[in-house]
Amino acid sequence: MIAAGPELADGTGRVQLSFTVEDKEAPPTQRAVRVPPGVSVFDSASWNGIAIDSTCGGHGTCRKCRVQVTPATPVTVHDERTFNADQLGQGWRLACLVRATRDHDVVVPPLVTRPKAATVGVGRQVILRPAVQKRYVELAEPSLEDQRPDVDRLLAAIDDLQPVPDLYALRRLPKVLRQSDFTVTAVVVDEALIDVEPGDTTAARYAIAFDLGTTTVVATLLDLVTGTPMAVASMLNRQQPFGADVISRISATMLDPTALDRLRDAAAQTLAALADQVCREAGVDPGHVYEAALAGNATMTALVLGIDPEPLGVAPFIQSTAAPPVVLASDVGLSLHPRARVTLFPALGAYVGGDIVAGMLATGMDRDKRVRLLIDVGTNCEIVLSDGERIVSTAAPAGPAFEGGAIRCGMRAADGAIEVVKLGDDVELGVIGDLTPRGLCGSGLVDAVAELVKVGLLDASGRFVDDQAAKQVAPELADRLTYIGQERVFVLHREHVDADPAAGVVLTQRDVRELQFAKAAISTGWTLLMEELGLGPRDVQQVMLAGSFGSYLSAASAVRIGLVPKLPVLRIVAAGNVAGEGAKMALLSIRERAGALALLQEVTYVELSDRADFNDRFVDLLAFPS
Amino acid sequence: MIAAGPELADGTGRVQLSFTVEDKEAPPTQRAVRVPPGVSVFDSASWNGIAIDSTCGGHGTCRKCRVQVTPATPVTVHDERTFNADQLGQGWRLACLVRATRDHDVVVPPLVTRPKAATVGVGRQVILRPAVQKRYVELAEPSLEDQRPDVDRLLAAIDDLQPVPDLYALRRLPKVLRQSDFTVTAVVVDEALIDVEPGDTTAARYAIAFDLGTTTVVATLLDLVTGTPMAVASMLNRQQPFGADVISRISATMLDPTALDRLRDAAAQTLAALADQVCREAGVDPGHVYEAALAGNATMTALVLGIDPEPLGVAPFIQSTAAPPVVLASDVGLSLHPRARVTLFPALGAYVGGDIVAGMLATGMDRDKRVRLLIDVGTNCEIVLSDGERIVSTAAPAGPAFEGGAIRCGMRAADGAIEVVKLGDDVELGVIGDLTPRGLCGSGLVDAVAELVKVGLLDASGRFVDDQAAKQVAPELADRLTYIGQERVFVLHREHVDADPAAGVVLTQRDVRELQFAKAAISTGWTLLMEELGLGPRDVQQVMLAGSFGSYLSAASAVRIGLVPKLPVLRIVAAGNVAGEGAKMALLSIRERAGALALLQEVTYVELSDRADFNDRFVDLLAFPS
Repeated sequence: MIAAGPELADGTGRVQLSFTVEDKEAPPTQRAVRVPPGVSVFDSASWNGIAIDSTCGGHGTCRKCRVQVTPATPVTVHDERTFNADQLGQGWRLACLVRATRDHDVVVPPLVTRPKAATVGVGRQVILRPAVQKRYVELAEPSLEDQRPDVDRLLAAIDDLQPVPDLYALRRLPKVLRQSDFTVTAVVVDEALIDVEPGDTTAARYAIAFDLGTTTVVATLLDLVTGTPMAVASMLNRQQPFGADVISRISATMLDPTALDRLRDAAAQTLAALADQVCREAGVDPGHVYEAALAGNATMTALVLGIDPEPLGVAPFIQSTAAPPVVLASDVGLSLHPRARVTLFPALGAYVGGDIVAGMLATGMDRDKRVRLLIDVGTNCEIVLSDGERIVSTAAPAGPAFEGGAIRCGMRAADGAIEVVKLGDDVELGVIGDLTPRGLCGSGLVDAVAELVKVGLLDASGRFVDDQAAKQVAPELADRLTYIGQERVFVLHREHVDADPAAGVVLTQRDVRELQFAKAAISTGWTLLMEELGLGPRDVQQVMLAGSFGSYLSAASAVRIGLVPKLPVLRIVAAGNVAGEGAKMALLSIRERAGALALLQEVTYVELSDRADFNDRFVDLLAFPS
Repeated sequence: MIAAGPELADGTGRVQLSFTVEDKEAPPTQRAVRVPPGVSVFDSASWNGIAIDSTCGGHGTCRKCRVQVTPATPVTVHDERTFNADQLGQGWRLACLVRATRDHDVVVPPLVTRPKAATVGVGRQVILRPAVQKRYVELAEPSLEDQRPDVDRLLAAIDDLQPVPDLYALRRLPKVLRQSDFTVTAVVVDEALIDVEPGDTTAARYAIAFDLGTTTVVATLLDLVTGTPMAVASMLNRQQPFGADVISRISATMLDPTALDRLRDAAAQTLAALADQVCREAGVDPGHVYEAALAGNATMTALVLGIDPEPLGVAPFIQSTAAPPVVLASDVGLSLHPRARVTLFPALGAYVGGDIVAGMLATGMDRDKRVRLLIDVGTNCEIVLSDGERIVSTAAPAGPAFEGGAIRCGMRAADGAIEVVKLGDDVELGVIGDLTPRGLCGSGLVDAVAELVKVGLLDASGRFVDDQAAKQVAPELADRLTYIGQERVFVLHREHVDADPAAGVVLTQRDVRELQFAKAAISTGWTLLMEELGLGPRDVQQVMLAGSFGSYLSAASAVRIGLVPKLPVLRIVAAGNVAGEGAKMALLSIRERAGALALLQEVTYVELSDRADFNDRFVDLLAFPS
């Protein structure tokens, strides 16, 4: 519906903005960025680290984000109020109100105030502009000559923000103003004036970022003044008793009508306990925490909001909403400032949730020109691929193997878990906590299989070789390849050479099959995404593995079993807790938050479950690469 | 700050819109209206009863309000999406996005849908466009090919509204959609999707208008489909135990820290009892009441919201806010639909509150070209004067005389109160309930004094004449002019001729003085307002007396004592419960609601308490007009 000029028709769906950034003390710099049509010039600049003056953060109220746009765009009422006729004729506009619907040249005048920035996510430089703003003001007292209502007096003193006062703030206003001689601090979150505090409290401005995982929940308390984390805490999600994965929790709500409320309570308790812990650790009054951001998968997000998750769990896998509304902290069980708000990450689909959207934000998937692949391995594995212009994503049903589920000696990455396996003359094991091995976690499983393939004890089809072949290819290890009952197993750990294999830590033929299914599902996912963008595996310039599994996984092993494309290992990096980093970014910058919402429009979700070619690819990819 | 053309400089602060309204079956009609600069063309038309097609009600989303504007105004992004280049060149624009900042000609094409209208207020024809909208939709069920989130599916089917879904609606959505085969009714209030109901519930759409008086609270249940009232109920405000007037209730909060909460509860209980009563009478499920509007003075509004009223009660008389935020019905104690909202009328000042703003709306003070005076008589008397272009208002401290306070035999207008007095050969009394007189209410007091002045028993200065003069001017009444103790009294009612005057209903010299003070305060108010606009009393074309007092008051008596300007009695009309009518209008039309907010900009509030000339005028106006 957007009127399209010929510049729009380059087939990529993006428009180019060529910025000339002026500087008082240096020659201007040039920078071209490509953004989806409809994004504002202010956002386009902000997302790409180009600072434009603004105190309102792009709401059209402060009138500071002046830029010169060629060709000129329509004049808005706000432009009319800001510029004279000559300036309008020269293309001067407020950057936050110009929507880039075609290619433009944009001149950015020298900054009046140099903005603060923080580094978060995967090397992302974020210009600090939190939704939470505080303004200390010293107001003139009212008189018969100046009978403005209290709130008008206050708002006039912070007129670059123009927030809407909420009832809580209006209730506090008369007393607080008069008890503190009309010197107060206004607390604004996004578009709302939520409170007025006596005196100058501008230094106390905090928020909490939550990574609401199915298994583990992580909270980070952020100082919004400096952009630095003050405390971090994590704990198991208290929803665990309802099942380890999202499907079992959805099933719980289908079987028991009280389960939804109980799951919601369990999530709320988890968040509250973590909030309490980080505030205590940092010595911060929870009343000075004015916002939280929450990144979770679609099921976790639905459950914490008390939304029935059943349609997420059954075909055709439908969300109630892709972009949850902003809610009060108390709606999700948090006792922060009474009017603190919670912003929840939007989701691309039932199985590419807010956690992965946060991950895309943290890894800058939409702002990097390289071909990059982001993989978050788990029971449900999310995969995102960008060629620098287009972004596609999908979810692959990997099953629980990587979390130790359905594996004979499988266990979570906890004390006693084998996390590294090396096979040479003997078996060399890395064990969490340096303890006696108790089982095998995901990274150990991948290592074990990769090493067995390398030494030749597993053939390319995933079958253990026979004893004779074993003695040929790996004479020192051959005695470990044995049987438990009828099943072929490889003994990773045993008390002594003659110990019963069933008493040790073993890898069974069935375990290998489970891993093959899991990795084939994932590699089918990225293979089909590459086909969508007309790319081959060798075109990928960077593979990012998200989450703690990604941090422990051996890149070489991942390549060897075919979990990731066959690439030099230096191109495969652990991206860390990208969901949590994305949540932090949303708190530090409303432009980044808007960027997360923009991803909903920009990323194409590819549903695998109805693709005719899925099974063919899957079978092809079961084998290990040669 | 608005860019002003030379057309703006006519000194009145208004711009003229000359509408040409086309009709499919008749020749076009011409109509010129004058509105404050900055108002949208859509609002300007709507407020003046000129219908323009629209389903979104002027939010820029339905793109139906197409008009041709000369000279052409700036092109907005929405205009670009709606019109082609030729049409834009011819001045076609969306009327809701054109702000009238200079004189324009506007062509309105023939209506596609003829809008419903209702008559409310003082002969005001209101085009029905409530904030509460319902849309019945039959949606396609989701599939693997169409995995849109539930809310996107719903919103796409009501895309002329574009509401923001709230959490309550999102919680209900998955179950309601699936239990009713995806045929549901969306419930939208203003910008929010508040619910989704199974099947077609479009016929059940209700709201309640409250006139929250200091003394009496009135509730009217409205059917928003037809615009008709379904039930009306009234009761005494349960805040009565805290005092009869606003000052005593404000004082209560200053003396007792628990009083604010208790006053808030008392107001909430009053509203809840009335809501319950009107719903029961009309047989309407309270869950189908989605909105309420509340018109009250500034103190009543503050108290029902739990806002400290103290600054309203002491100089310099400051409100917390002039325009209270929209709150949930539950915030003011109402059990309607769980997400029903309450809109509260804005106030011009601490003593020209939301009730009088509602009254201005109901009487069309800003849309009538005549010189009109609106007076709401009470302890605090609000006065509004318009010359057809400018509107000025003030509050006059009339004291409790008109409500029977500080009057020896004064009482409220209840059974046994003398409400009409005629003096001729004898005393002729109208008594409420046709009972034996118990006392004198406001209209009876005004009548009694006016008649005594007429027959000559009271002189122009307000003093009872001596016995000799009495016998000369009114021989049949002279024996009723007597003494109680040292004080001169006139006996209005006595059991028999020789009865003790103190046992009857009398008017004392002090009572006359009280009335003189009250009426002088009011007439000083309108005299000063007339001076503000350069008018004399005889320029006034209509005097509207608001409230029940206005309905009972004799216009002739009001003129005789100087309470209103000396005008032919036909120009003095009772306007009825204008606050309640204004509240109804706000529920029936969001354009009228916007009009109430626009009044805040348009009406000039004149503070009397700091005027040097107030006392001089007041003393001049104590006497009765000759």
